[in-house]
Amino acid sequence: MTTPQQHDPDNNSQLDAQGRLRHFLTTEGLSRDQLTQILDYAETFAGVGERPVKKVPLLRGKTIMNLFFEPSTRTRTTFELAAKRLSADVLNLNIEASATKKGETLADTLHTLEAMHCDMFVVRHAQSGAAHYIARQVAPHVSVINAGDGSHAHPTQAMLDVFTIRQHKPDFSQLTVAIVGDIAHSRVARSEIHALKALGVKTLRVVGPRTLIPAGVEQLGVEVFHDLDQGLRDVDVVMMLRLQRERMAGAYIPSEHEYFRRYGLTEARLAVAKPDAIVMHPGPINRGVEIDSQIADGRHSVILQQVSHGIAIRMAVMAMTLGRQGGENTADEDAG
Amino acid sequence: MTTPQQHDPDNNSQLDAQGRLRHFLTTEGLSRDQLTQILDYAETFAGVGERPVKKVPLLRGKTIMNLFFEPSTRTRTTFELAAKRLSADVLNLNIEASATKKGETLADTLHTLEAMHCDMFVVRHAQSGAAHYIARQVAPHVSVINAGDGSHAHPTQAMLDVFTIRQHKPDFSQLTVAIVGDIAHSRVARSEIHALKALGVKTLRVVGPRTLIPAGVEQLGVEVFHDLDQGLRDVDVVMMLRLQRERMAGAYIPSEHEYFRRYGLTEARLAVAKPDAIVMHPGPINRGVEIDSQIADGRHSVILQQVSHGIAIRMAVMAMTLGRQGGENTADEDAG
Amino acid sequence: MTTPQQHDPDNNSQLDAQGRLRHFLTTEGLSRDQLTQILDYAETFAGVGERPVKKVPLLRGKTIMNLFFEPSTRTRTTFELAAKRLSADVLNLNIEASATKKGETLADTLHTLEAMHCDMFVVRHAQSGAAHYIARQVAPHVSVINAGDGSHAHPTQAMLDVFTIRQHKPDFSQLTVAIVGDIAHSRVARSEIHALKALGVKTLRVVGPRTLIPAGVEQLGVEVFHDLDQGLRDVDVVMMLRLQRERMAGAYIPSEHEYFRRYGLTEARLAVAKPDAIVMHPGPINRGVEIDSQIADGRHSVILQQVSHGIAIRMAVMAMTLGRQGGENTADEDAG
Repeated sequence: MTTPQQHDPDNNSQLDAQGRLRHFLTTEGLSRDQLTQILDYAETFAGVGERPVKKVPLLRGKTIMNLFFEPSTRTRTTFELAAKRLSADVLNLNIEASATKKGETLADTLHTLEAMHCDMFVVRHAQSGAAHYIARQVAPHVSVINAGDGSHAHPTQAMLDVFTIRQHKPDFSQLTVAIVGDIAHSRVARSEIHALKALGVKTLRVVGPRTLIPAGVEQLGVEVFHDLDQGLRDVDVVMMLRLQRERMAGAYIPSEHEYFRRYGLTEARLAVAKPDAIVMHPGPINRGVEIDSQIADGRHSVILQQVSHGIAIRMAVMAMTLGRQGGENTADEDAG
Repeated sequence: MTTPQQHDPDNNSQLDAQGRLRHFLTTEGLSRDQLTQILDYAETFAGVGERPVKKVPLLRGKTIMNLFFEPSTRTRTTFELAAKRLSADVLNLNIEASATKKGETLADTLHTLEAMHCDMFVVRHAQSGAAHYIARQVAPHVSVINAGDGSHAHPTQAMLDVFTIRQHKPDFSQLTVAIVGDIAHSRVARSEIHALKALGVKTLRVVGPRTLIPAGVEQLGVEVFHDLDQGLRDVDVVMMLRLQRERMAGAYIPSEHEYFRRYGLTEARLAVAKPDAIVMHPGPINRGVEIDSQIADGRHSVILQQVSHGIAIRMAVMAMTLGRQGGENTADEDAG
Repeated sequence: MTTPQQHDPDNNSQLDAQGRLRHFLTTEGLSRDQLTQILDYAETFAGVGERPVKKVPLLRGKTIMNLFFEPSTRTRTTFELAAKRLSADVLNLNIEASATKKGETLADTLHTLEAMHCDMFVVRHAQSGAAHYIARQVAPHVSVINAGDGSHAHPTQAMLDVFTIRQHKPDFSQLTVAIVGDIAHSRVARSEIHALKALGVKTLRVVGPRTLIPAGVEQLGVEVFHDLDQGLRDVDVVMMLRLQRERMAGAYIPSEHEYFRRYGLTEARLAVAKPDAIVMHPGPINRGVEIDSQIADGRHSVILQQVSHGIAIRMAVMAMTLGRQGGENTADEDAG
C-alpha cells in the first residue's frame, strides 16, 4: 500500500464520458452507488440461494487477454473462468516470454494485441501503477482490469471481500471492520479501505506492527491499532492479510513464529470480537502463520465463500465494462 | 503395479449411494456390467463405422480442471480434447508452480478450486493413491478422474485397451491375452488385469523378466511366463508395455539391447500367436526397444486405434460421472 | 530465404486432386486466381468498413493443434485467435517438451495426434522444409498450415502483407514495391516475392547490403539495390524486414548503428518515395534499428493494419482448407 499522500491523479479515468465503468483499476474514487451497482450485478451471477451461473453468452465474440507480468495461478484462473463462463474467447499471454524479448516496447506490444481486436486486458504487474499506465495506452474500445499492481491496488479482490461482507451483514453503517496484518505491502488493504469507506462502514480499523502500517494511513479515515486484542474488540468483520515477504526488501521482517504470537488469529484472540463475527482471508492461507487452522476451518470463516464470490465479481466487472459497447459481429450462419 | 496384497480399501468409493459412477479411480472392484456400460457409452462417441462425435453440448456449463502433478502432454491432451468436445470449460493447472509454493496445503488448494465451482478434477500424480486421496477430500458435487497415479492405476488407459479389444474380438470368454514387459512398474498393467478378469477373458498371461513381475501376481488369476515364445503361444491379443526406467530406482535395469533380444516383439516372435492376433501398446512407443517397427506399423497393430478410442472412453467417463447431476445454470439470455 | 536454385519440388502438393487448397505451405506455385480467392475470402472476415467478424461457427467441431517447435507468442496468438473465432477447438502443444523426449519419433507423434481426430496442424519450425515434411506425413483428412519454417516461407505473413497493400492500392499492375533489409534470412521476403510476382506488380525491388541479399535472387524477377535512396525512389510500397540476427551465424553482422545509418527508414529517406507510399513491417519492430519512430507511428505506416489483417487471412486459410470437407458430427442433442 502506498502512502495516502500519493494520490492517484487519474482515479476517475476508469469511467467513460457517460460516467459508466470503462476500466476497473481501483476502488478509489468510486461512489457508494457505483460500488453497489457492481455488487448487485455480481449477485445475479453468484446464484445466491440457488446455483451459480456457469455459462451465459453475454460476451460471446469478445476477446479477453490475460497479461500476467507477475505469475499468479490462482488469480489468473478466476479471471479465465469468469471470461469462459461469459462465453468470451480468452488468451493467457506470458508477456515476459514474448516479443518484448525481441526489443519491442510495451506500448508496441499492447497496440499489436489491440490490432488483433482484443477487447479487454486483465493486467497483473509487480509495479504499482502498471494497470493505469496500460489503461492510458489502449484504444477507446479496449477495457483494462487491474488484477493487482505492486502494493497499489487489487480492486476485484476488495470487491469480492465487500460482497462477502454484504452477504452476511447487509447494513454497512452498523459495522466495525478490522484489517489485520501487513498493511504496508498490501494492495488488497488499500483497495478494501477505499471501498469500505465509500460504502459507509461505521468504524474501520487497521491492526499490525508499526513497521507494517504506512505512515499517515489515519488520513484515510481508519483507526490504527498495534495490539491485536484491542483491535479486534467488538468487531463484526476480521480481514486477515498475507505476509508479503517478497515485497519487504530492506524492511524489518518478523519471524513467522513471532508474527503468529503477536498477530496470528486464534480462537482465543477472536473471543473479544462479536460472537457472530466473520473471518476473511484473501488466500492462499499460511496455516499457523497468520491464522490458526481452527479459525480457518471454523464457523466464523467465510474464506471459501470469498473464492466463490470472486468469480461472480469478475464476471460482473467484465460484463459491465465490455457491455457498454453493443454486441459483436457474430454470424450464426456461414460467413463465406 | 503394487502387489496384490495391497488391497485398495476404498475400491468402491468411486460409486455413489445409488451405485452410479461418481469418480473413476480404478478398474478394481467394478463389475462386468459396470465396465460394459462404460464401453457401450464410449461407442456412441467413437463413431464406429461412421464419423466420431466431435462436438456435443453434454457438459456445457461444467468446469473441468486438469491437475497434472506429473507432466504428460499426451494424456493431458486427450482429456482436454474430450472435455472440449463435450463443451465443458477446461483449465490446465500446473499445481507445482502454483499456490503450494506459497505455503498452501494441497487440501486448501483443492477446496479453493472447488469454491470456483469446479465440477471435475482430472488428476495425474507420481504417487500411488494420489487420486484416491483427492477423491476423499472433495465436495459431494465434484468428480475425480484418475489419469495415472504412480505404479497403481491408469483406469482410462485400461478401458480404452479393453474397448479396442472388443472392437476386434467381441467375445471375451474366448480370448487368451498376454501382457508383456515391465509389469512391476506399470499402472496400466494393474488396471488392465482387473478389467480383463472382470470381463471374463478365458486366459490372462503376464510375460516378463522375473525382476519386472511382482511377487504374488498369480493371486489375481493370471498365468506368469518368463519366456516370450511360451507366453505368446496361441494368444489372441498381445499388450506390450513401456519400460518405465524412471520408476526402476534400485532395481535391476536390463540394457535396451538385451531387453529387446529377450522381450522385444518382432514378426518372428509373433509367429507363435494366433494368425489374427492384435498387437497393442499404450504409447509412446520405443521402436527397437519394446517393439519392432515392422510390428508397430504392420497389419496386427491397433496402436493408433487405441489412441482414437482413448478420446471416446474419456468422453464417456466424464459424461457418466458428471451426468449424474442435473444440468447447469446456463442462461441463454442476458443474465443481467 | 533460400536461393532460387533450390526449387520446391512439391510446390503444388498443397492442392488436392480437385485443385483446392488442402495445405497452405508456401505462396510459391499459387496462381493469381488462387491468391485472389484467399484475399477475397479474408475480406469477409476483416469487416472492412464495418466491424470484423469475431465469432462464426464455420469450424465448430474441428480440432486445430498449434505445433510450435520454435516459440513465437505473437504468431501463435494470431492463429489461436483465428481458430477460436471460427469456433474450432484449439490446442497449443509444446512438442519439444512432449513425447519426443521419451524416444518417440516425430512421425509417431504426428500419427498419434491425428488419431485423436485432429483436423489441422499449424506448424512453426526453425528448419526450412519442416511444414512440407509434416504435410507429407499426415493422413488425407488433415491440413497443414506453415506458420514459418526456417528461412524458407511464411505464407500467411506474405498474404496479410499483400492484403494490406490491396486495401490501399488495389491495382497491383501499377505498383512499385521495395522490400528492404535482410532478404537472405527472411522467410517473409521469399513468400512475399512469390505472391507479389504472381499478382502482377509492375516492379519489385529488394534493397539491402550485399551480404544480406542472396545470390541469384534476380532470377525471381526482382531488381536488386544496395543503396536505400535509389531503392526507394518512386515506390508505392515499402516493406521493411527485421534483422534476423539469430539466423546470421557465421555471416557478417552489421552493427545496429551502422545498419540504421545505411538502411534504417526515416522521414528523410522516405521523401524520395511516392507521397502516398505506405510503409509496412512484419513486427515486432526495433525502433531506431530498422525504422524510425516517426515513420512507425506516422501517416505512411500501415503496420497495425497488417496485424489486424493477419487474423482475417488466417481465418480465411483455415476455413478454406478445412471447409473442403463436409461438416463435423456435432450433435446438438444429448449423444447418450
